[in-house]
Amino acid sequence: MPKISFKANAMPASPIRKLVPFADAAKKRGVKIYHLNIGQPDIETPSSFMNAVKNTDIKVLEYSHSAGNESYRKKLCGYYKTYDINVEASDVIITCGGSEAISIAMMSCFNPGDEIIIPEPFYANYNGFSCAANVIVKPIISTIENGFALPPISEFEKVITPKTKGIMICNPSNPTGGLYTKAELEALRDLVKKYDLFLLSDEVYREFCYDGKQYFSAMQLSGIENNVVLLDSISKRYSACGARIGAIISKNKEVMGAALKFAQARLSPPGLAQIGAEAALDTPQSYFDGVKKEYIARRDFVIEALNKIPGVFCPKPSGAFYCIARLPIDNSDKFCQWLLEDFNFNSETVMMAPATGFYSTPDAGIDEVRIAYVLKIEDLKHSINCLAEALKVYPGKTAGKKTNNHLQNG
Amino acid sequence: MPKISFKANAMPASPIRKLVPFADAAKKRGVKIYHLNIGQPDIETPSSFMNAVKNTDIKVLEYSHSAGNESYRKKLCGYYKTYDINVEASDVIITCGGSEAISIAMMSCFNPGDEIIIPEPFYANYNGFSCAANVIVKPIISTIENGFALPPISEFEKVITPKTKGIMICNPSNPTGGLYTKAELEALRDLVKKYDLFLLSDEVYREFCYDGKQYFSAMQLSGIENNVVLLDSISKRYSACGARIGAIISKNKEVMGAALKFAQARLSPPGLAQIGAEAALDTPQSYFDGVKKEYIARRDFVIEALNKIPGVFCPKPSGAFYCIARLPIDNSDKFCQWLLEDFNFNSETVMMAPATGFYSTPDAGIDEVRIAYVLKIEDLKHSINCLAEALKVYPGKTAGKKTNNHLQNG
Repeated sequence: MPKISFKANAMPASPIRKLVPFADAAKKRGVKIYHLNIGQPDIETPSSFMNAVKNTDIKVLEYSHSAGNESYRKKLCGYYKTYDINVEASDVIITCGGSEAISIAMMSCFNPGDEIIIPEPFYANYNGFSCAANVIVKPIISTIENGFALPPISEFEKVITPKTKGIMICNPSNPTGGLYTKAELEALRDLVKKYDLFLLSDEVYREFCYDGKQYFSAMQLSGIENNVVLLDSISKRYSACGARIGAIISKNKEVMGAALKFAQARLSPPGLAQIGAEAALDTPQSYFDGVKKEYIARRDFVIEALNKIPGVFCPKPSGAFYCIARLPIDNSDKFCQWLLEDFNFNSETVMMAPATGFYSTPDAGIDEVRIAYVLKIEDLKHSINCLAEALKVYPGKTAGKKTNNHLQNG
Repeated sequence: MPKISFKANAMPASPIRKLVPFADAAKKRGVKIYHLNIGQPDIETPSSFMNAVKNTDIKVLEYSHSAGNESYRKKLCGYYKTYDINVEASDVIITCGGSEAISIAMMSCFNPGDEIIIPEPFYANYNGFSCAANVIVKPIISTIENGFALPPISEFEKVITPKTKGIMICNPSNPTGGLYTKAELEALRDLVKKYDLFLLSDEVYREFCYDGKQYFSAMQLSGIENNVVLLDSISKRYSACGARIGAIISKNKEVMGAALKFAQARLSPPGLAQIGAEAALDTPQSYFDGVKKEYIARRDFVIEALNKIPGVFCPKPSGAFYCIARLPIDNSDKFCQWLLEDFNFNSETVMMAPATGFYSTPDAGIDEVRIAYVLKIEDLKHSINCLAEALKVYPGKTAGKKTNNHLQNG
């Protein structure tokens, strides 16, 4: 029997999905599970999206252009314009989800062995895509105590080597909910310019910024137009995760030329979903206003409820729909598995993502979990209640760390 | 400005799509172009597929399982069963087109620098996926004179080195239209077993086998169950190229475990198209019978018409909807470009794929073109007529090679 590749062995299993077998077993035992483990919103996909798909009169479902339908890319530029991101259709390649955008960007920009710096905790699948592209992730820690703000530039410079080829950020951030300020991004710009690095910026949560705080795109940074590669997706914007429509966007013609060759090899992005995505560009602002209001209510509830549990600390996020909470526990992997295998409260339990999967540094995040507040408030009430009850009886409970709690309401 | 990767530079541009700018310019000049250059059929997608999508009552377009919807995978096993391919849902991962199946299979099976043997001419994008996975393609030539039959096993053995890790075939073949016999596949099985190689078998054209000849799957070869990886797609089966639904299938649990990790990193395959693909499994046999009848008529017309042109030789293919024709020309890249740039007959011309893009050996196929007979017979008549007229006046015309023409009717 021939051996699978080294890369296949090295690929990390998804930390978000690896507990699924335990959840399935719990469901079979009749336990209701509240899924706070995955960024799958319960928000309805806009009717504009679904109706366009339903009303299509396509007779032959043909390949689209490898870069995506031109009509969609042109209209998409108008959307970006509303965020002061000035791009043309030729700067945009439609991809199969944000995932393919990351994958193509990494293959286009980085050689095997090149290093990229990523503030951690970061979206776990960056590890998978880096592994697939043979790129080395150099993490630098952002901490829960200061609400996962961008680490000081000096921390980036400490890990820069001749092999450093890029920096990758997620803004607003999955998994922290953090939103970088304009000043933080300008500091990054200076660093990127100084060392002539690529800046890969994953901004799929731009619709989810709260408390009047301003989203500022890496594409708005002047002077590094050839360094920035924007990675995007409609999954969260329109609650259309299953559509698999994303985009890779850059003013760097060499990067886009390379990306197009990778895009041509796989022929075209999903066709039906492009029809929905193009139509969804006409989604009225009231849809987004309603969604945002809902998420703010959910966030406010979750953060307050979490911080009321003895020993729990959770800074208040400014964007996306995640938070990372520190719990009074020995090990979040064990705890999250225990919640599914050995615990229930009134035949209910909660599924969360152990934060260790979002760190690349060993043992970092060992007492933290990522919570996706993607359920209705009533369900969130049950969820957090389950968690509170679980923490009363979990065998691996600890005293918890002392934390300066001023950030709870930040 | 940071440099793009070596891999990005090495990636081949699509030979099928690189002439598109010349075609666009011709269209702007008012020239009608018959597209024989790309495997985009004009056949209607089955109503079962489109109706299922149109009638869906999805409210939230969620991620599917990373391996694809379980209901689809289960039902798909029934489809394979009708071809004597015995697999279970856990042996199947749904991918974003056959393209992603190839990409994931390569990353799962091969290390950078590993060599895979592919009989050429082969599907041009195998070069792109090999480049992306840092895998070295070792081509062995199959010739137009013997109808692109599998090269003798001794030719495979000549290029086997300690780095050889696999063999890749396409059966029925794009671009040759060749269909391997059971005896040829059994010879391959013995070779694969002897050297313990992976056998990647791309069988997306299994519905298109003609003249009563039997399609035999690599999955039916006993004794190499752990070596075979089947790469599949619904693009041609249901004329649904834009759906982007494919599959990677293997009885090798390690390969499937690895493939699932790559699949998890990109979250899920396209959701809307999976609904259509599942429903399309109920497409009545009459649909396929009608499609097959149409393609046989087209093939018979094209092959006969081509071989009537002085100096042209085209063996009669037994499967898929392509043929490779040898023309009395100096250079097929130049000729195909000239057809678009400098020629028209009654304001019409024809677009074909230079066969050089389907060979990895330099200069192989220099006087050959790949023709996709995906148009109605009336359009094919105009196309072949254009070609005949073009060959009368093309400045780079040659005397043509002498060929044993017995294969025309083979």
